[in-house]
Amino acid sequence: MKELVFVGLGLNDEYGITLKGLEELKTADTIFMETYTSRMPDFNLQHLEELCNKKIQFITRQTLEEENGKQILQASRIGKTVFLVPGDPFIATTHVTLRIDAQKNGVPTRIVHGISIMSAIVSLSGLHNYKFGKTVTVPFPETLAQTPYNVIAQNKKLGLHTLCLLDLREPENRYLTINQAIKTLQNVEQQKQQNIVTQDTIALGVARAGNSQPILKADFVKNLVDFDFGMPPYSLIFPGDLHFMEVEALIAFASAPVEFKRLFK
Amino acid sequence: MKELVFVGLGLNDEYGITLKGLEELKTADTIFMETYTSRMPDFNLQHLEELCNKKIQFITRQTLEEENGKQILQASRIGKTVFLVPGDPFIATTHVTLRIDAQKNGVPTRIVHGISIMSAIVSLSGLHNYKFGKTVTVPFPETLAQTPYNVIAQNKKLGLHTLCLLDLREPENRYLTINQAIKTLQNVEQQKQQNIVTQDTIALGVARAGNSQPILKADFVKNLVDFDFGMPPYSLIFPGDLHFMEVEALIAFASAPVEFKRLFK
Repeated sequence: MKELVFVGLGLNDEYGITLKGLEELKTADTIFMETYTSRMPDFNLQHLEELCNKKIQFITRQTLEEENGKQILQASRIGKTVFLVPGDPFIATTHVTLRIDAQKNGVPTRIVHGISIMSAIVSLSGLHNYKFGKTVTVPFPETLAQTPYNVIAQNKKLGLHTLCLLDLREPENRYLTINQAIKTLQNVEQQKQQNIVTQDTIALGVARAGNSQPILKADFVKNLVDFDFGMPPYSLIFPGDLHFMEVEALIAFASAPVEFKRLFK
Repeated sequence: MKELVFVGLGLNDEYGITLKGLEELKTADTIFMETYTSRMPDFNLQHLEELCNKKIQFITRQTLEEENGKQILQASRIGKTVFLVPGDPFIATTHVTLRIDAQKNGVPTRIVHGISIMSAIVSLSGLHNYKFGKTVTVPFPETLAQTPYNVIAQNKKLGLHTLCLLDLREPENRYLTINQAIKTLQNVEQQKQQNIVTQDTIALGVARAGNSQPILKADFVKNLVDFDFGMPPYSLIFPGDLHFMEVEALIAFASAPVEFKRLFK
């Protein structure tokens, strides 16, 4: 049956896929996979191929963009085709066009969701989900971080937390670290002086969400700027107004200094 | 080894769990499960027990609250204990206290994430993730929906989308429908008259996210108020400013009227 199924791989490694996702692989005629929208540090392709007993073809961003997904569309006009995407297939909007094109070509599409970094980070943090405002990406220092700074400011004004995704560049395997991201935002602070990212601002860095041993550290910016978060991937949260249960969670799960308790009543 | 592992069940049925989550079940000494923070319409307990070859004990909200998680804490002081939670274990904050209590009792805790409705809905909608503002829950009509109305208004002012979770009451198995949620918000509109939820406001209803056949319908409020979304669970999105690719996605995946195209340039 001709069909294009977008399957989320979830986080970190091949065990991040759901049973539902694995079933789709087992019954697929052709399987493609990309790893450029986010990285899966401990992913073992051969092992996933063994689990589903199928061959999986890697597809690069360049190939996909140059040929507008032609290979995938061709396969899906012939038989059941699965496109494996890290995290959830459509949290990044990268593949929306491919899905629209498939439907325009009369190929039915389906989504089998995967775990997204978006919900995993919120879950790990112990912060309240409904208190997150707009999400933002902090760019590499070559680009001015005005936008993320402004988003953090806007969210704070409303008492809301900001989840900052940190930029990555895939071909070079380059990651913006939490320390760099903070410095980048401090540079904007020096210009704007709105007291959004000062030495005494509270932040929470998260490394390797989805791994069995993620690193979380909540502290004042001055202490985070040199903190060693180990290997990527990274993200960063700037909390807005904190409920005392959120403070408790930051102390219990993110080694926040007990001082945090006195700051919030 | 004494340990408390919170494992997310993901959405809809037992196939929503990750391979990682299933491995945790296979090696657990005791397994508890709750189904009151959200419903899994097609969940088959016996099948999951077969998959992991273990017994799973249901725990009700009442039991958990009355005894402050005593059963779970006791089991986790003796051996590896898994607590199964629909979606992701900590997107609802319900179980944060239990995790803090375990750590205070010297029991190490871990999270194995599950797919959350939060990311699944965004993914299904084709709307841009970074354009979502604060999330809100629409209550049953007995309660005035001032807060959700105000949140939608605030997000719209900033050009942001609002994801509305719709209330559910577990013991009675009662769900707020998309139609009811819209009417509830229209009642607030009548009082406040801020043009936030009028007849000509655009909205997107989603039923059964995580199921292989979710229902999505984007339309003007006047057409959604009687639309039949079938069985629960339900959610509702009020878009803010739309990019043309988002409009394309709403037309392709959520049967939005082609008229939408003329509304956004």
